Amino acid sequence: MEFCLIGAGFIGPVHAANIAVHPSARLRCVVDLNREAAERIATKYGAQVAPSLEAALADAAVDAVVICTPPRSHAAIIEASARAGKAIFCEKPIDLDLAKVDACGETLRRTGVPFFVGFNRRFDPTHQAMHVAIGKGEIGRPEMIVVSSRDPEISPPDYVKAMPYGIFYDTMIHDFDMIRWLTGHEPVDVYARTAVMLDEKTNPVRDPDTAMVVLTMADGALIHVNSSFRAVYGYDQRIEAFGEKGMLVSRNQQPTGLERYGAEGIRQDPLHYFFIQRYAAAYASELDHFIQGVAARAPLAIGFDDGRRALAIAYAAMESAKSGRPISLDA
Amino acid sequence: MEFCLIGAGFIGPVHAANIAVHPSARLRCVVDLNREAAERIATKYGAQVAPSLEAALADAAVDAVVICTPPRSHAAIIEASARAGKAIFCEKPIDLDLAKVDACGETLRRTGVPFFVGFNRRFDPTHQAMHVAIGKGEIGRPEMIVVSSRDPEISPPDYVKAMPYGIFYDTMIHDFDMIRWLTGHEPVDVYARTAVMLDEKTNPVRDPDTAMVVLTMADGALIHVNSSFRAVYGYDQRIEAFGEKGMLVSRNQQPTGLERYGAEGIRQDPLHYFFIQRYAAAYASELDHFIQGVAARAPLAIGFDDGRRALAIAYAAMESAKSGRPISLDA
Amino acid sequence: MEFCLIGAGFIGPVHAANIAVHPSARLRCVVDLNREAAERIATKYGAQVAPSLEAALADAAVDAVVICTPPRSHAAIIEASARAGKAIFCEKPIDLDLAKVDACGETLRRTGVPFFVGFNRRFDPTHQAMHVAIGKGEIGRPEMIVVSSRDPEISPPDYVKAMPYGIFYDTMIHDFDMIRWLTGHEPVDVYARTAVMLDEKTNPVRDPDTAMVVLTMADGALIHVNSSFRAVYGYDQRIEAFGEKGMLVSRNQQPTGLERYGAEGIRQDPLHYFFIQRYAAAYASELDHFIQGVAARAPLAIGFDDGRRALAIAYAAMESAKSGRPISLDA
Amino acid sequence: MEFCLIGAGFIGPVHAANIAVHPSARLRCVVDLNREAAERIATKYGAQVAPSLEAALADAAVDAVVICTPPRSHAAIIEASARAGKAIFCEKPIDLDLAKVDACGETLRRTGVPFFVGFNRRFDPTHQAMHVAIGKGEIGRPEMIVVSSRDPEISPPDYVKAMPYGIFYDTMIHDFDMIRWLTGHEPVDVYARTAVMLDEKTNPVRDPDTAMVVLTMADGALIHVNSSFRAVYGYDQRIEAFGEKGMLVSRNQQPTGLERYGAEGIRQDPLHYFFIQRYAAAYASELDHFIQGVAARAPLAIGFDDGRRALAIAYAAMESAKSGRPISLDA
Repeated sequence: MEFCLIGAGFIGPVHAANIAVHPSARLRCVVDLNREAAERIATKYGAQVAPSLEAALADAAVDAVVICTPPRSHAAIIEASARAGKAIFCEKPIDLDLAKVDACGETLRRTGVPFFVGFNRRFDPTHQAMHVAIGKGEIGRPEMIVVSSRDPEISPPDYVKAMPYGIFYDTMIHDFDMIRWLTGHEPVDVYARTAVMLDEKTNPVRDPDTAMVVLTMADGALIHVNSSFRAVYGYDQRIEAFGEKGMLVSRNQQPTGLERYGAEGIRQDPLHYFFIQRYAAAYASELDHFIQGVAARAPLAIGFDDGRRALAIAYAAMESAKSGRPISLDA
Repeated sequence: MEFCLIGAGFIGPVHAANIAVHPSARLRCVVDLNREAAERIATKYGAQVAPSLEAALADAAVDAVVICTPPRSHAAIIEASARAGKAIFCEKPIDLDLAKVDACGETLRRTGVPFFVGFNRRFDPTHQAMHVAIGKGEIGRPEMIVVSSRDPEISPPDYVKAMPYGIFYDTMIHDFDMIRWLTGHEPVDVYARTAVMLDEKTNPVRDPDTAMVVLTMADGALIHVNSSFRAVYGYDQRIEAFGEKGMLVSRNQQPTGLERYGAEGIRQDPLHYFFIQRYAAAYASELDHFIQGVAARAPLAIGFDDGRRALAIAYAAMESAKSGRPISLDA
Repeated sequence: MEFCLIGAGFIGPVHAANIAVHPSARLRCVVDLNREAAERIATKYGAQVAPSLEAALADAAVDAVVICTPPRSHAAIIEASARAGKAIFCEKPIDLDLAKVDACGETLRRTGVPFFVGFNRRFDPTHQAMHVAIGKGEIGRPEMIVVSSRDPEISPPDYVKAMPYGIFYDTMIHDFDMIRWLTGHEPVDVYARTAVMLDEKTNPVRDPDTAMVVLTMADGALIHVNSSFRAVYGYDQRIEAFGEKGMLVSRNQQPTGLERYGAEGIRQDPLHYFFIQRYAAAYASELDHFIQGVAARAPLAIGFDDGRRALAIAYAAMESAKSGRPISLDA
Repeated sequence: MEFCLIGAGFIGPVHAANIAVHPSARLRCVVDLNREAAERIATKYGAQVAPSLEAALADAAVDAVVICTPPRSHAAIIEASARAGKAIFCEKPIDLDLAKVDACGETLRRTGVPFFVGFNRRFDPTHQAMHVAIGKGEIGRPEMIVVSSRDPEISPPDYVKAMPYGIFYDTMIHDFDMIRWLTGHEPVDVYARTAVMLDEKTNPVRDPDTAMVVLTMADGALIHVNSSFRAVYGYDQRIEAFGEKGMLVSRNQQPTGLERYGAEGIRQDPLHYFFIQRYAAAYASELDHFIQGVAARAPLAIGFDDGRRALAIAYAAMESAKSGRPISLDA
């Protein structure tokens, strides 16, 4: 499968590296407005720099695209890629504008190209083991889920400015997806509170950097998610699912298992610094799923509807945070 | 210090045992409508069964009372004890009726007797270490606090019937107190959702047995508390406090530190079964604080105002759960 | 049961406090050459200072003695106490001289007084849970046992001088007893290596402060014990038992369960500082066992033979360390 | 760098896969008496099956060999490869016969080809973090080291028959190397005890399947290693290093971080099943070290002398186990 990487920044290099070592994939070309970034990746993996998105999509040898550009550009790129008949791996969120997202969905349905949303966390081995355990009924029906989803740093001001309430659209959107996946249910309402805790220098845009959410699911289960953009001890990624028969905990991960015993106590490593370290295996695994699924014409694990619903929850969370009231979600 | 134990059920025997082994205390008498229960304790510790509350309070040798009766009776007993000039150790909540509680407060102020509310968790060594660490600024100002407060079983139907929304009044009231204590701030609003997850047989009253709460504090800090009445793995008592400089976690406790490695994995003990095991040290420690504080005429750590405020939060949580909207709290 | 405490130093105050709070015991008198130390304890618990050991033993009201004097004095005191018909609770070791110990044994057999050796670790809840699990066959027959037995500090020079190779006689003797108890077998040989790792100032006597031992048990099981007198992170007390069906680990204990997450990692408390903190429950529990056993005329859990055998292993370990060769033990 | 893989069984496929994904390496050919095994690997990675070792070594395009054949064949292959001027990556042990090993050493010195012994554990991230911490003086000089090195199963009877006392030559040889690496010192004597604990069916050869060793290092440090061939809970790989300033622990690793809380306790995954899972990262990392080191003509981390010394310790351990006495090692 020959890939075109669209977007060479942020997570782009991670996908490029995974494509490079995958036995059934090859990175054919890279597109980015920042030509230097595109060239850096292309050179490393023996790919070309496509002169434009149009040129890349016109290349019949390209089987699939990986979309890693800023969220506001996603819908247009998805539409163009779908019309060009490419299989699409799109980073979350599908887009920020629900109307554009719905138009996308129309095009995807019409063209029938394979479409996958990169909610990588579903492919983490520990989260997956939790999903399997819930599926086996180990705790009975999940009655409460508590998620800690904290980043070690805030994004750069331009990125923050481009996506207000990014704490819901960019960060918790993963957790909203995880909750749908783990419970098998949709939320019926959401209540969210936010705060700006970082100082002016670190968060000059003053967009929320701290948030707590409570969701009620269609079956009555209660969900809590909390998030912050300054976990100094690393990328804090925990999920606990509680039910009639017990609790499952997906605990944090660390770079090494070294324990240091001294007069001042017992010390372990801080957590993995951020998503690239923490979810390295998940990124490789979701790409492999995409490649194998597209090749086998099998349904992909995370489709358009999943991406659209997670986005709708993020939207409702923002509305709740702005209004101070819980917001209902359509079924 | 000579004690009268008022209420021989539930937590009464715990306080009686702690009085018995305390070097400066003696259990003088026990009062309970259930004479058999009173006699069991009295016999064990060489105390008398008082014929009535009035008789007990008229006994000049009684220096202090420990009130362990059902919550709805607290206000009247507090008033009578205060008028009799006794130092008062009262189990939480002060009472269930805020008007009666305020009347109590008036009497306490007038009589000036020492008054202590038994929020025992403040005396747990690990929670205390967290309080000290926050006080030293180890994590900076707390920005988020997450509390898991789950019981292994629901109270008997009569008890549940007598205290609707006991999940707030009886259980989370501890956590509401802890949050005020740990942050040094008051909440400005509270949002609560509840569910009935237990079956008809286990929870015939159909009072909420599952709940999630989000509180916003006066300084903007966000707080989450969750609770259930059927944690099959034991009494789940965790607090995490997150701030600019890191996170503090008061983790769960187990009866032994034995680890069992087998083909099916690594197994540890379930958690302590319930509060009597988990907070054994805290119960002894709060009594010691009371005895020493009263003797030294020093201010007690948890006074009327603390008890009243925790109750007001529980009341607001119930209002929120009933109305589906966040409820504001007065400063 | 009325007790005479013989020896007011070291562990004496621990036993005195446990006697004081035990419902069926009373501290009647204290004997010590250091009259001030004896008076401190006697005053605290309302006991008398006995003018001499002879006077104490002549007191018909004394039912039992607790012997906490330096080890070299034990045999004589045991003999005198036995002849006086007192029940005897003796700190380990029975004595340092095997010939004197055997003479003691003769007297104990002749007089038939209850005799208990204070190997307190057998009464630790976690070690006990391991003993129970082995007894139930959870790991099958123990094939290997690994014990870490490390103190945070070395004893004062006078104490060290009085008991050469105290690392075997005073410290590992506990582990030798534990191994017999956990496996239900006797060792057939022992190999020991020692080192002097502390500097001249901390260990002026230059007696071994570091040691490793391998024991072979009668059934072929292999045992390792290691010890040091300077574990700066606290009292390191771990046992692991390995067998056909798995492994049991009695892990270390800490004063609190607080975890501190910061940029430099995750930090927990150091271990309990030393035996008084770590084995507080075990000391209370072994005394209760003694009191109840003597009252019921039931056999005590740890008798003369247990004390004698642990001592013989310590002796062989010293011989091995001196000679550099493994030493056989009689069956 | 073009590789010839010599030996397609056991660990051969692991090295083949790591060569295949390494950006600077290519698997050119595979040699094995078992042609089917060789073909399986060759086909998977687009390599050839070499008709013979001689043919492979005569191929000028082959830059390096990876030797994964049974230990007794190593010396001859090393000599032939060295004479052919190939860089050599040799699985441990160098060989089983010290005389042959010394002859090898002579050839290696004469030919000057790069030579690396695959003590993969040195490249495990957690063990490496321990090495770095010791190097920085975090615990001062190591005074005691305790190693648990337990396999989940015994090798097939033919393999066991071919390497008597394989528990020292095949398993603990890793630990002997680790100890030299971690302490920076050589052992001066070794004491070993073994046992046959498995039943006739599982261990028909009756070669030792259980062992304990104590080593004394040149600087007086004491070392303990224990091993078994039936850890039912997985591959038990722990190291603890104790010194003046504290202790470092390289703890066990598990496939996932899922915790399951139920009425029967808290359960985690068993350990990684065996070395292929546990040391996956270490195998990739040691190969990368070899490739980069050879390319840069830099000294390799683990050379002939390291392999020879670890073997000599294994030999002495066997002698001790057979004789029941400690065995001295030359400096």
